[in-house]
Amino acid sequence: MPNILILSRDAADYTRLLAAADLPNAHLMTPNQPLSDCEIVFGGPDLIRAAFEQLPNVRWIQSTWAGVDPLLDPALRRDYRLTNARGVFGKLISEYIFGYLLLHERKILQRLDAQKQARWDPTLTGTVRGKTIGLLGVGSIGAEVACTAKHFEMTVRGYTRASEGSPHVDSYYHNDSLLAFASGLDYLVSILPNTAATRGTINAALLAQLPPHALFINVGRGSAVDETALCNALQRGSLAGAVLDVFNTEPLPAEHPFWRTPNLFITSHSAAPSFPTDIAQLFVENYRRYTAGEPLKYQVDFEKGY
Amino acid sequence: MPNILILSRDAADYTRLLAAADLPNAHLMTPNQPLSDCEIVFGGPDLIRAAFEQLPNVRWIQSTWAGVDPLLDPALRRDYRLTNARGVFGKLISEYIFGYLLLHERKILQRLDAQKQARWDPTLTGTVRGKTIGLLGVGSIGAEVACTAKHFEMTVRGYTRASEGSPHVDSYYHNDSLLAFASGLDYLVSILPNTAATRGTINAALLAQLPPHALFINVGRGSAVDETALCNALQRGSLAGAVLDVFNTEPLPAEHPFWRTPNLFITSHSAAPSFPTDIAQLFVENYRRYTAGEPLKYQVDFEKGY
Repeated sequence: MPNILILSRDAADYTRLLAAADLPNAHLMTPNQPLSDCEIVFGGPDLIRAAFEQLPNVRWIQSTWAGVDPLLDPALRRDYRLTNARGVFGKLISEYIFGYLLLHERKILQRLDAQKQARWDPTLTGTVRGKTIGLLGVGSIGAEVACTAKHFEMTVRGYTRASEGSPHVDSYYHNDSLLAFASGLDYLVSILPNTAATRGTINAALLAQLPPHALFINVGRGSAVDETALCNALQRGSLAGAVLDVFNTEPLPAEHPFWRTPNLFITSHSAAPSFPTDIAQLFVENYRRYTAGEPLKYQVDFEKGY
Repeated sequence: MPNILILSRDAADYTRLLAAADLPNAHLMTPNQPLSDCEIVFGGPDLIRAAFEQLPNVRWIQSTWAGVDPLLDPALRRDYRLTNARGVFGKLISEYIFGYLLLHERKILQRLDAQKQARWDPTLTGTVRGKTIGLLGVGSIGAEVACTAKHFEMTVRGYTRASEGSPHVDSYYHNDSLLAFASGLDYLVSILPNTAATRGTINAALLAQLPPHALFINVGRGSAVDETALCNALQRGSLAGAVLDVFNTEPLPAEHPFWRTPNLFITSHSAAPSFPTDIAQLFVENYRRYTAGEPLKYQVDFEKGY
């Protein structure tokens, strides 16, 4: 009977959802049990990191987040299985990306300005149809974004290390074809995780491949962006706009130049929250696999970092 | 060799596109030919209406618009085939509707306000996923909107006279089940044409079926809405918002209360422009059918009015 510890700001929700799921043979730990009894942890990587030294017998950690940086510290043990939350964020990220793409193409803010002046403004609309979107990173989130892009009749390029798993990507790029991948894109979207290999990928050379009407959207991790290079491109107008959900430092410091950069949308890491109903469902499925001795879904490779 | 007259504000584009299409046996009329030689007219219903009395021998009119009101005047001849532009607007209308739905759910304007104050605002996002959308009218446009709604994992209701043609509609409503159709919808979308039967369909009784968090979007015709009832619902807050592309009178008069109504988006009949490349393609296909003696696509029923 595995002891399960829930460590999350949404612990009340998760406790209720797991109780309702009636997991066979599971025991949700009570506050007076020693943490050393704990075999499974379900929660946020930041809280788990804080308690990690007191969890010597943990065998599986299910993160409620996609990013598991706090647990990738090389100083920490890796003698357990770490699974993250994937699969559930693709639809949310797709909604976010298309919300901003359509805001831009449909000139929604410009029409609002006209309305404030009681001015009829039948300015011709743009459209996402026929545009080319480039996805930096095509995992489960990228595949979902590619699917939405195809729904809207767009052309999709994907840049990955090696994988070519999504049928909705029209052309794949790898290795040193990064600049060719970005050349002439209408929209560049980064879904890159925070790893040594992705740091600073979106730099001046990459941004220089984009036409002046292009938009850049970052829903991956802030470390993939050279923030100074992006500021410069937006200041100069060599890029039409950027939509950033993630940053090198979060919350974004009050003195950061991004707050004063034109054509920039800052969305405070809100694009894809971990809705407890989604994440609990993932835990239930992985718990079934864990007890059946099957491979877990979305196991993190500690070396790769995702 | 049928004489084709182009009557459109985009005549230069259409002339170029039809010349490039190299229509077999067609002759694009020159300015010094008498209009009585004209067999086929391709253009905007307003301009065609103005020239109608001088076109006694027209046998087919292809409208560049979806709405053909100017040609439905009962005083006018109906001894020719009238086809409108359909099929091409569905994707555009879908982009428009989801642009505003995502603007709302993603709290884009609220996040922009926070950004203007350099304030980190991780307010939880809403989502269109799981919501219920109701489509008043499910023709080619409604079917496209239903398809996008399903892509975003929504529930779709459709209200039609009798047709049940879209596989993306979860439940159909007809006749006197209009109030049941609207009851509890998260989003109500009107795609109704301007006919005697649709006038004032969106009235106080219908709006009263919607919960206070609901949005109403009108991409059909303004005449389907009781504008006073809609103003009242928005003023009272019994409806979260409305997005209107069409109005009883267009351009919307400067003194119209809509300009001062809260939570209302006015988009000046810009949702689905007739892009010449799309419409020319439709004309080319219908010209092929016309010369082959086949039924034309999107022929208007003068009695029904669409």
